[in-house]
Amino acid sequence: MARAPRTARQGRARNRPARGGLAHPASKAKRLKRIGIVDTSFSRYDMASAAIDELRKQGEGFTVERYTVPGIKDLAAGARILFDRGCDLVMALGMVGRQPVDKDCALAADFGLQAVQAQIGKHILGVMVHEEEASDEAELAGLFDRRTREHAANAYDLLFRPAAIRARAGTGQREGFADAGPLKVTRT
Amino acid sequence: MARAPRTARQGRARNRPARGGLAHPASKAKRLKRIGIVDTSFSRYDMASAAIDELRKQGEGFTVERYTVPGIKDLAAGARILFDRGCDLVMALGMVGRQPVDKDCALAADFGLQAVQAQIGKHILGVMVHEEEASDEAELAGLFDRRTREHAANAYDLLFRPAAIRARAGTGQREGFADAGPLKVTRT
Amino acid sequence: MARAPRTARQGRARNRPARGGLAHPASKAKRLKRIGIVDTSFSRYDMASAAIDELRKQGEGFTVERYTVPGIKDLAAGARILFDRGCDLVMALGMVGRQPVDKDCALAADFGLQAVQAQIGKHILGVMVHEEEASDEAELAGLFDRRTREHAANAYDLLFRPAAIRARAGTGQREGFADAGPLKVTRT
Amino acid sequence: MARAPRTARQGRARNRPARGGLAHPASKAKRLKRIGIVDTSFSRYDMASAAIDELRKQGEGFTVERYTVPGIKDLAAGARILFDRGCDLVMALGMVGRQPVDKDCALAADFGLQAVQAQIGKHILGVMVHEEEASDEAELAGLFDRRTREHAANAYDLLFRPAAIRARAGTGQREGFADAGPLKVTRT
Amino acid sequence: MARAPRTARQGRARNRPARGGLAHPASKAKRLKRIGIVDTSFSRYDMASAAIDELRKQGEGFTVERYTVPGIKDLAAGARILFDRGCDLVMALGMVGRQPVDKDCALAADFGLQAVQAQIGKHILGVMVHEEEASDEAELAGLFDRRTREHAANAYDLLFRPAAIRARAGTGQREGFADAGPLKVTRT
Repeated sequence: MARAPRTARQGRARNRPARGGLAHPASKAKRLKRIGIVDTSFSRYDMASAAIDELRKQGEGFTVERYTVPGIKDLAAGARILFDRGCDLVMALGMVGRQPVDKDCALAADFGLQAVQAQIGKHILGVMVHEEEASDEAELAGLFDRRTREHAANAYDLLFRPAAIRARAGTGQREGFADAGPLKVTRT
Repeated sequence: MARAPRTARQGRARNRPARGGLAHPASKAKRLKRIGIVDTSFSRYDMASAAIDELRKQGEGFTVERYTVPGIKDLAAGARILFDRGCDLVMALGMVGRQPVDKDCALAADFGLQAVQAQIGKHILGVMVHEEEASDEAELAGLFDRRTREHAANAYDLLFRPAAIRARAGTGQREGFADAGPLKVTRT
Repeated sequence: MARAPRTARQGRARNRPARGGLAHPASKAKRLKRIGIVDTSFSRYDMASAAIDELRKQGEGFTVERYTVPGIKDLAAGARILFDRGCDLVMALGMVGRQPVDKDCALAADFGLQAVQAQIGKHILGVMVHEEEASDEAELAGLFDRRTREHAANAYDLLFRPAAIRARAGTGQREGFADAGPLKVTRT
Repeated sequence: MARAPRTARQGRARNRPARGGLAHPASKAKRLKRIGIVDTSFSRYDMASAAIDELRKQGEGFTVERYTVPGIKDLAAGARILFDRGCDLVMALGMVGRQPVDKDCALAADFGLQAVQAQIGKHILGVMVHEEEASDEAELAGLFDRRTREHAANAYDLLFRPAAIRARAGTGQREGFADAGPLKVTRT
Repeated sequence: MARAPRTARQGRARNRPARGGLAHPASKAKRLKRIGIVDTSFSRYDMASAAIDELRKQGEGFTVERYTVPGIKDLAAGARILFDRGCDLVMALGMVGRQPVDKDCALAADFGLQAVQAQIGKHILGVMVHEEEASDEAELAGLFDRRTREHAANAYDLLFRPAAIRARAGTGQREGFADAGPLKVTRT
């Protein structure tokens, strides 16, 4: 999700003004939103801290409720618990191993996340990093960080700036990697 | 879905009279229907604009509620949110990448879309384009456009012209490609 | 489902007396049952007409509510809508293409059909024909026709003749193909 | 599930005293339990008769409600219908063919069975025999019979003798085949 | 999950003080928590006893409700039954065989566990050991024991020491094997 329509070069999450005053003027914020963060002890990167740091950079108007579970198959119950505590949106942060059994776990985890969303009617933004997506540990750490932050920006936008994410619709955003970009249409 | 029973050559969506007066006479339309459109920033084509443009070409009697989410795994929650806002039908528009992990994502996304439909009892017309369905970008853009428009026609028909879609039953419609056509039966 | 216990040669659906008077005597039928038929425009065979024709051959006591949707992933919502309109049982009729993506679609569709049944507590008899099950179009059309009709007989039996389907329990019925038949047991 | 802790040689289901008086003394049985049996016409073995026969050998205190459906994808709705008729536990009996499409059917069927159990909060003991598990028909018939009977014993135990199944916990029971047995632990 | 942040060498579960007085002072425990344990007769290791033993080593403040079912596909219903009996968290303990059909069973089981969690909003900690994860029986038994105990510690922490599991967030915990450890980040 690097290139938003109006920013050509850098990661979208980075070149936003920190705590941008105009994004969420205090006069409108009758009630603070509550953003849940559920992460795992299985993950090799502290995704929750990156998410919380980035959310705070994006703007104001929310509190964070953090909750850690063992692994990705525990994320759905964790998210449900966070909704039951009053969260308006949950980020579910996890890492997927490289074995076939890990892929089945990821499918089961995703299934649970979908079931909770279908039932509750609120977003769980799943941020999953697969161990084999990067060739070494430093690169993997960077991917964890970028993808988590870019999804934190998505979370903020879904709650506070729907027009901003709508402006990126159909533009080939890729969280953690270079964006694919929009297709050139040559309508006949 | 190119060849509807009565039209041999062109895409069905195209050769319908724009805003056809007789499809939805104002006298019947006590209440405007509400069509939800949920699309993604991951997609490389602005499917929502194509869908909305085509819906308007099909006829009247509805308003559109548009909502953009990051990726296909967020479509189900997005659709549920649109139903909660009063939509009668939702089009869920997304692109599926070419990696194995993308296929698992598509399955998870589909699972969520099915779960929401089972719960709400209203249609979510999923329009998914797989990156590898076309050999170059121009062709892929064309496929995005045609498939989205033909499903927009389906959406309109489900709400306003059920007899029209019933007339296409069993005729091998293919959205975005040439139709497969009906089988010739040689009953013994 | 070709050979029912008492009929050796022909398709079970065929050699039943049309509109057999004794199957459903009018005196018992306080209320007509309602059978929903949901089919698709994707299918290359008019399965709904075959199903309705066969249901009528099987007996009386029901009305038919027909509804056409675009593809198999829309069947579950369609079935749910038919239950909401008062149907007692729904036949969901669809065709599955030969590509891997089509198999994933079939799994998603089946998932939705199971979710609706789990929720509503009534049967959706899914009739799916896979494009590659027959070697040419004439054979495929015949398979569509036989399988649909034999499942229509199943639907009728579930509602009106549970003893008839119980009599076929464990006999290796195959809808659309020759039956596998019961296993010979040589208990030691 | 051949070797229960206290019986070294024979199938557990077999060497229990038929209608064992002490398992379920009449004085305790205020209400008869209701055991549902849902089986299929697709199966090549009459699993329901084997299950009912074995349940009766295990003891008393229950009535049986039997229901036959076409295939394994219909088992979940059948089980739900049996629960709605008051069953306390359902045995779902089916056969899985050897084709890839049959495996997807089994997954869909299992999904439905899980969804019903999650919703109702009662057990559905699924007994599935895969066509390729035995090398000839006689062996396959024997497997059908043993597995069904051993799961009937499980069903009886879950309802009437929970201590008996707890005694088998972690002992590597295999229904229809020789048990795998418990692992020898050499704690360091 | 061997190395928790503060313990470099041994399994986390082991080097905790047995029945640590300060973890759950009696003054706070108005109500005892209830931990459900559902295990299987299919498993070749008595996982439930290991779990219960370890829970008791972790601390106090809870009672245990144990329930044994035949196999992993019965775990979800078992967990639901334990929640209906008042459990606050359930550990679901099972073994997965090495055949492809066993992997599908595991997926179905996981599906059910997710569905129950989505519905109930409480954790089911699934502990699954795959038969092929170890090269011989002694090693497999050791893996069963370690993984079960380390997840019992997780269960205890989720209920009584959420700060302890949060301290392990993003540290690459692996239950039953050596931990993967946190990634070294070299932020540019």
